[in-house]
Amino acid sequence: MISRNDIAAAAARIGRYVRHTPVLHLSAEELGLEFPITLKLELLQHAGSFKPRGAFNRLLSTTAPAAGVIAASGGNHGMAVAYAARSLGMRAEIFVPTLTPEIKVARIASYGARVMQVGATYAEALAASRERQATTGALEVHAYDHAHVLAGQGTVGREFEQDAPELTHVLVATGGGGLIGGMAAWYAGSAQVISVEPEGCPALHDALVAGKPVEAAVGGLAADSLGARRVGGLMFPIAQAWVTGAVLVSDAAIAAAQQMIWDRLRLVAEPGGATALAALLSGAFRPPDKARVGVLVCGANTDPGKVAQP
Amino acid sequence: MISRNDIAAAAARIGRYVRHTPVLHLSAEELGLEFPITLKLELLQHAGSFKPRGAFNRLLSTTAPAAGVIAASGGNHGMAVAYAARSLGMRAEIFVPTLTPEIKVARIASYGARVMQVGATYAEALAASRERQATTGALEVHAYDHAHVLAGQGTVGREFEQDAPELTHVLVATGGGGLIGGMAAWYAGSAQVISVEPEGCPALHDALVAGKPVEAAVGGLAADSLGARRVGGLMFPIAQAWVTGAVLVSDAAIAAAQQMIWDRLRLVAEPGGATALAALLSGAFRPPDKARVGVLVCGANTDPGKVAQP
Repeated sequence: MISRNDIAAAAARIGRYVRHTPVLHLSAEELGLEFPITLKLELLQHAGSFKPRGAFNRLLSTTAPAAGVIAASGGNHGMAVAYAARSLGMRAEIFVPTLTPEIKVARIASYGARVMQVGATYAEALAASRERQATTGALEVHAYDHAHVLAGQGTVGREFEQDAPELTHVLVATGGGGLIGGMAAWYAGSAQVISVEPEGCPALHDALVAGKPVEAAVGGLAADSLGARRVGGLMFPIAQAWVTGAVLVSDAAIAAAQQMIWDRLRLVAEPGGATALAALLSGAFRPPDKARVGVLVCGANTDPGKVAQP
Repeated sequence: MISRNDIAAAAARIGRYVRHTPVLHLSAEELGLEFPITLKLELLQHAGSFKPRGAFNRLLSTTAPAAGVIAASGGNHGMAVAYAARSLGMRAEIFVPTLTPEIKVARIASYGARVMQVGATYAEALAASRERQATTGALEVHAYDHAHVLAGQGTVGREFEQDAPELTHVLVATGGGGLIGGMAAWYAGSAQVISVEPEGCPALHDALVAGKPVEAAVGGLAADSLGARRVGGLMFPIAQAWVTGAVLVSDAAIAAAQQMIWDRLRLVAEPGGATALAALLSGAFRPPDKARVGVLVCGANTDPGKVAQP
């Protein structure tokens, strides 16, 4: 398991390349809840999601070959790797599946990376990227199942604890588990870390039930950012130790949360970015009395025209 | 002139009704500038702009009659008055001109206010609201030319100084001058306060040249939020004393700043909200060496589909 020391070292390593994103304290009535909450606005991170933290930690922890770096992604990790590679003067090749929204494909290319769109889901794009990697010898930057990536994502938890030390519960959306794995390794029980997944992408929920990572469905509104076929092997023991709940929410609840985030906060969250909040707004997760609840809003990479009314 | 004490009293009065909005420190390269800057994300305020600060301070400083409150506005002030009135259990009537975007009209109505769309510009809507006020006896909440409104807007400056005390220059967009008047009264020379207006709405620029408030043009991309025909009489002596620059920017520079704010920060700023940053990005304002520059991003009330590419 990665340790708090690994995460503190990652924070020092990536500090000048990532944003310390702000928190926002909201009273109960602002979102129509029965309790106040604290949001961490990680959607304001470079490239519009938390992913640059892990990407920079991976790239700054090793020496990339002349062939540069290669990654597979539903979109956000690819944007982050492309962004980080450009910042550090490296070449990047990114494999994304066909379900990746055009807006993310275009953004990856805008950071100067070569983009290949292959396969229906992330898992197939990953397989294609590995075939390619065997030819080129580029450095693979896995989207979640690597210790440096986990430690990088864990820096979100470190900042959140710094800025809101009073929290007793932290809600985090889960895809392949890099983010929640890193955050749960940081908190290590000092706050309860709750996983939230779409009903269509229940990889961590199913793994915790089965007692091991298992193949899960990949579908629905947030599949591009949360649609890992199975959670990472490195994060799973961390989740078993420190993730105290695995909640599922409907696509309708996710869309409603996106609307609420625009309506009340004037922020644009992508479906995966609104998923953790959806668990509170829909009642899928109800904190105990006197809980101090934090929610990570982790991504903004969507077409803003789709989330705003009026 | 309003004093720092007036603004501190306003902050205490409105504290539980408004958000303490976050600041974001950006390195020089993040926006392609030659110097770092600090943004205050006031666009995350209730109702999507700074305006609730002044509205709440006005409504909490007096007793409204049974007829409730009345205001004229290009849109943001109307949203704020409607929001504040609903929060405090008062009725509200809001007059807006025909140039007010439909998205703002709908939002005012969504807060439960009665909306009347009258006249081509804010000045004509104001005249109509005053005729109506003479009939109903409702409490007028002026959009900028009232001491309680100025002091309320000044609380933005107080928070910005608390969270970024190192700033030497603060850039603020100007319409009727309530915001910059309040902020300049707060800083009172401890930082230079720079006004930024669209070329199409140069009310403060022209007033400072003339030595008194004068009629100015009202047009262009940000006219709904910055299109006052003339600046307020109360703010003008404050501006003469403490506003050290009055910069004009083109609509193209404003639109480019909106794009940059989405592209690099994943925030949606309306044209008036992006105007202050436009002065830096376009080079219309160049800070001296060693300046520490702050920029207020003051409004988000636009159709997000219009500001985001790719």
